[in-house]
Amino acid sequence: MSKSNRRKFLGTAAALCAGAATASARPLATADNPKPLIHHVFFWLKNPGSKQDRDKLIEGVKTLKGIETIRKIYAGTVADTEKRDVVDASWDVSEMIFFDDPKGQAIYQTHPIHLEFVKNYSHLWAKVVVYDAMTV
Amino acid sequence: MSKSNRRKFLGTAAALCAGAATASARPLATADNPKPLIHHVFFWLKNPGSKQDRDKLIEGVKTLKGIETIRKIYAGTVADTEKRDVVDASWDVSEMIFFDDPKGQAIYQTHPIHLEFVKNYSHLWAKVVVYDAMTV
Repeated sequence: MSKSNRRKFLGTAAALCAGAATASARPLATADNPKPLIHHVFFWLKNPGSKQDRDKLIEGVKTLKGIETIRKIYAGTVADTEKRDVVDASWDVSEMIFFDDPKGQAIYQTHPIHLEFVKNYSHLWAKVVVYDAMTV
Repeated sequence: MSKSNRRKFLGTAAALCAGAATASARPLATADNPKPLIHHVFFWLKNPGSKQDRDKLIEGVKTLKGIETIRKIYAGTVADTEKRDVVDASWDVSEMIFFDDPKGQAIYQTHPIHLEFVKNYSHLWAKVVVYDAMTV
């Protein structure tokens, strides 16, 4: 490669790579709000022993991900950790959602997908407890 | 650029960019376990009205991030969301941690940094409730 071609190569290669880096960095920046509102819901089933009802409710929780203000959503069951006095392991299904702010959570509450979830799955649970934590 | 130089350029540029893409993709892959163990702790202060005690405990929660098995950690306070019957807003400080698995959580429990946290900050709280949820 001539000296001028080499210079041209380095410039063009840098531009190409800069483009690639920008493209791959974008999802990281939007996905990871370092100060999310954490909406954590615990459900106690009417039939706590029923694996079928548990799986049905987990299926329901997963339908919520279509709501636009949800940044991340996780469905959970009781983890296999030591059952110390302070650990509440009496619940059956959990739903943990990251919103950007209280407004995102308010939009979720009255969103048609959420109302549909309540309509179709609320017969499964006997009790719900919600914690809304703002990251500081 | 000659035809052969151009071919060489494209090959080298592709190799360079592939390297850049791998490097920028790596943090995403390790940081975002799609199935984390969610360890969520709620603290009720002995002096619930004390902003000083609240800030002190938040400071304590933030010391925990030095523990190697912690993938993500968030300290929180009660979010400004609608106070519906199902919402428990009686707590003062929260700590939400992502571990990869129950083993990561067990290592955290007996880690010197965690024991130091309990020693230095437990006089501030009257009650603790812990939820350990495994993402499914």
